[in-house]
Amino acid sequence: MPKREGSKSLNGAKISQNGAPAIEKIRHSLAHLLAAAILERFPKAKLGIGPTVEDGFYYDFDLPRSLTPKDLSDVERRMREYIKQGYKFLGRKVTPAEARRVFKDQPLKLELIRDFIKEKKQLSIYTTLRQTSGQTNEIFKDLCRGGHIRSTGEIDTFAFKLDRVAGAYWRGSEKNSQLQRVYGLAFGTKKELDAYLTQREEAEKRDHRILGPKLDLFVFSELVGSGLPLWTPMGTQMRFLLDEFVWSLRRAHGYERVEIPHITKKELYEVSGHWDKFSDELFHVQSREGHNFVMKPMNCPHHIQILQRKQLSYRDLPVRYANTTTCYRDEQTGELSGIARARSFTQDDAHVFCRESQVKEEFFKIWDIVDAFYKGVGFAGLEVRISGHDPKNFGAYLGTKPKWQKAEKILKEIARKRKAKAQFVPGEAAFYGPKIDFLARDSLGRERQVATIQLDMNLPERFDIFCIDEKGKRERLVMIHAAIMGSIERFISILIEHTSGAFPIWLSPIQVQVIAVSRKSHKYAAGVYKSLINAGIRAQLTEPDETLGKRIREGETQRIPYLLITGETEQRTGTVAVRKRGKGNLGAKNLSAFIQSLQEEINKKK
Amino acid sequence: MPKREGSKSLNGAKISQNGAPAIEKIRHSLAHLLAAAILERFPKAKLGIGPTVEDGFYYDFDLPRSLTPKDLSDVERRMREYIKQGYKFLGRKVTPAEARRVFKDQPLKLELIRDFIKEKKQLSIYTTLRQTSGQTNEIFKDLCRGGHIRSTGEIDTFAFKLDRVAGAYWRGSEKNSQLQRVYGLAFGTKKELDAYLTQREEAEKRDHRILGPKLDLFVFSELVGSGLPLWTPMGTQMRFLLDEFVWSLRRAHGYERVEIPHITKKELYEVSGHWDKFSDELFHVQSREGHNFVMKPMNCPHHIQILQRKQLSYRDLPVRYANTTTCYRDEQTGELSGIARARSFTQDDAHVFCRESQVKEEFFKIWDIVDAFYKGVGFAGLEVRISGHDPKNFGAYLGTKPKWQKAEKILKEIARKRKAKAQFVPGEAAFYGPKIDFLARDSLGRERQVATIQLDMNLPERFDIFCIDEKGKRERLVMIHAAIMGSIERFISILIEHTSGAFPIWLSPIQVQVIAVSRKSHKYAAGVYKSLINAGIRAQLTEPDETLGKRIREGETQRIPYLLITGETEQRTGTVAVRKRGKGNLGAKNLSAFIQSLQEEINKKK
Repeated sequence: MPKREGSKSLNGAKISQNGAPAIEKIRHSLAHLLAAAILERFPKAKLGIGPTVEDGFYYDFDLPRSLTPKDLSDVERRMREYIKQGYKFLGRKVTPAEARRVFKDQPLKLELIRDFIKEKKQLSIYTTLRQTSGQTNEIFKDLCRGGHIRSTGEIDTFAFKLDRVAGAYWRGSEKNSQLQRVYGLAFGTKKELDAYLTQREEAEKRDHRILGPKLDLFVFSELVGSGLPLWTPMGTQMRFLLDEFVWSLRRAHGYERVEIPHITKKELYEVSGHWDKFSDELFHVQSREGHNFVMKPMNCPHHIQILQRKQLSYRDLPVRYANTTTCYRDEQTGELSGIARARSFTQDDAHVFCRESQVKEEFFKIWDIVDAFYKGVGFAGLEVRISGHDPKNFGAYLGTKPKWQKAEKILKEIARKRKAKAQFVPGEAAFYGPKIDFLARDSLGRERQVATIQLDMNLPERFDIFCIDEKGKRERLVMIHAAIMGSIERFISILIEHTSGAFPIWLSPIQVQVIAVSRKSHKYAAGVYKSLINAGIRAQLTEPDETLGKRIREGETQRIPYLLITGETEQRTGTVAVRKRGKGNLGAKNLSAFIQSLQEEINKKK
Repeated sequence: MPKREGSKSLNGAKISQNGAPAIEKIRHSLAHLLAAAILERFPKAKLGIGPTVEDGFYYDFDLPRSLTPKDLSDVERRMREYIKQGYKFLGRKVTPAEARRVFKDQPLKLELIRDFIKEKKQLSIYTTLRQTSGQTNEIFKDLCRGGHIRSTGEIDTFAFKLDRVAGAYWRGSEKNSQLQRVYGLAFGTKKELDAYLTQREEAEKRDHRILGPKLDLFVFSELVGSGLPLWTPMGTQMRFLLDEFVWSLRRAHGYERVEIPHITKKELYEVSGHWDKFSDELFHVQSREGHNFVMKPMNCPHHIQILQRKQLSYRDLPVRYANTTTCYRDEQTGELSGIARARSFTQDDAHVFCRESQVKEEFFKIWDIVDAFYKGVGFAGLEVRISGHDPKNFGAYLGTKPKWQKAEKILKEIARKRKAKAQFVPGEAAFYGPKIDFLARDSLGRERQVATIQLDMNLPERFDIFCIDEKGKRERLVMIHAAIMGSIERFISILIEHTSGAFPIWLSPIQVQVIAVSRKSHKYAAGVYKSLINAGIRAQLTEPDETLGKRIREGETQRIPYLLITGETEQRTGTVAVRKRGKGNLGAKNLSAFIQSLQEEINKKK
């Protein structure tokens, strides 16, 4: 069962913690400066909290009016002045009584103090101040655990920026009042900030939630519901091409396809252990006769039911089941993100049932499939991670420690044999076994988890999966879970953002668009279109009802690999004027020569 | 949306109503003779009811003990004696008082009398009697509306048979006492009875619920739940072959594939009207945030959501969406029947959105696909039925009468143009439009509904589906629903029972099985197997761990089209000994010649 990946994390957050001031301390200190500047402008402001985030910091305020863009730029300017003037951040422990006195006009802080006391936490206050001509000038005091730079001299004045204001409920609860949250971006240097802003802008342009519908790949419907994508003909075409590619690789390695329903009685998950670990995320289904069904969030237990229809001999092994099938998880609305995190998602799932002695060979086969697939879709050089159990939270897993240690050892050996530089990360395993994860770096440098291979010694135990060995004895089997794309939806979201829609030609829903210069040459264009279709190329013919320029731009926006412009000259000479995506005009080519070279280009993938 | 077909009906019931005595009257009279013979044997028997059924009759009795097989044969013999002696069935109207007096010892009859009086029905009694030497010999009286032969002389003594005893609750309610229901079979002639028994026996042998798992095509799991089939590798292979065949035919006619989730907010069905008409059959899905989702029992409204993502021009039409996808209906456990009627079923669904002027051409295209498909799977000469609305129950449908009349007229024209002898059947339409149904007759002569094409002018209205026409005006579109197989599951159940597992070779999950005579020739067998696989043939190699005879029988039971026996002789000569399904031993053939002729045979389908 492939794990769902959470929200994407922009790589920016990981930039340079080297050099003297840790970026976290800078961000935290900037949050205090922000609060100081806001208080100066709105003396009656009530303060919430002000933590760091992956690309900077924020602070929540209760203010007499909504902040305007001018407020933001004024406040930002004021923060720069503070930095130039040179302030220090001094902390000291305080008694509850003193804390209450200092924050007597700050009701939200008083609420926090009350809670900290209840939790028996030591209270401390950080003061932002400077000494000028013997005088101490104090601009801000915060209830704070610390983690600051010593002085604002450590901040690069132009490496931060107030970013935006958003609404946020106090303590995240809708029952509380809504505050204004001011977000700031902050990095070690201006160069890093600029790089981050450029990347973010680029990422926004490539956001699959915008680009997917624009490329006409999928669509959401209010009546169907959020988190439930509907796939257009072009998106469906891509899904099939991807799925058929994975299947062609699997078939060559002895996989067989199976098919299962999307619901099951909950008893199946009671046996598997999913009911205990996952029941929050399951959609519950009621029947009129009172059955308790659930929608499947994964396929392993169903596949096990197919396996167990008959007694297995060691001769039958390995059994390899592949199944592209849609799973459902009851994601909360706030967690949804286009097709990257949806309520319905289609896994290209596979399960191998084999003897322990066969595990390595099966892993190598899957690894070959992963390599071939990601090469084919344009992701070179995947990184490898071994995700193990969290020794501090062993209760979250099925099975025994020795079983886990054994499984993790096998995965490490496999990675070593494969000569992969694999990082071992505790706590990232599935609840039934450790896994090898493959990570792709996209064109914006972001790390995206893609394929995964999991070694499972626990579900075979729970379902009593065994074969009869050479001596007529029962032998416990192991199970390998392997998804190549993970989910088709999430993979397409990654691919859209990686390529910004310029898919490899074998995967492009439309490979060639034929554009007649004018109505006069439309008949010739239609003939060209027909020749392409007959050659098995996915072509489209535009109606000459718009200007030539507009139609060319439209084809370029749709990131179609080739546009063929056909005018009277081309008609006379039996040629086509070729515009290649990213290359521009390639000039006139003989039609049949063009088709032949195109077919070669398309077939190169595999 | 293809309609689910109910339980299968054996054709026997429809045999010969020609000749003087209507078979119904004979069956009804036999029920009375059965009751007479039972009463003679068990004078304290309490009588329930005794109607006719599609292959005979039954009568319900409350008896002091369970009936034994000997009781049944004695009673049957007694009935034959009555027939030979010659009895008449005489009816007369009676007053409530008289009826109560006659049946004073029959509490169940008294209950019926009470109800009939309440419903103000005229009561009548039928008496079974004969006159011998001036005396009237009366053997039975029943509360009965009539419908009898005049005398038992009209019954062929050997054309009936007491069949079995089953438990049945009085008036079908679990709250009432359980009665013993004696079933009898009855036909016009002994020949008809024998034909029926032979056919029934054959049907039982072919029952897909037995044969499907035996052929290892599908399986049910207690943990997953009844009505939710799981598909094995061989069954899944068949599903893909069938689905790809349909898709290849559709693609050639300009269809595009789309993909949709299996759930939706109920609002979608409130717009479509399914919520009103279908809500009992919908599985309801609860989310933790309190959304009310339902599992889709059909795909039309989802497909409409994809269509409506953009404004349509008349130039875009027809739009043709195909989608093989699983639907769910909350069937009651008692209604389930293997994969013929399940809770999950996969439709090979398609929807065409077009102008009214395009309807006929689109119907003809689909009709071509239906013809090609059913020829390919071995069903020649489909019968055609036009299913219209029921004028007496118009409230069950969406839309206006004129719309329905118009749509039905179009279907009749289409059938006429197609030169099909189409029967018009009122009351068989979908709730949103009339349809053309195709009926196949299987190898046992049973009529099975297969493909369906529906014309729908109502959902376009409810969803406001239109295009912009040549003059820039809105034009209401129509929608065509078309499934070729209906559901893959039900179609495979029909195919299993039609072929008893001897599928056309292109569709056989295993086309060739290679069987080494002994361990000595196993290596050669493995080479033969490899050649077959490399030639794209679905082959299987048996291990020589059983006797040759047993392995051959096993291959025959699995209805594998070809068994290749390879011994030392074959090894020496580079041949294979060929056994063809249904033909037996074809002798030795050169391997590559065999492969070539096999490939030709497989490709012949299309």
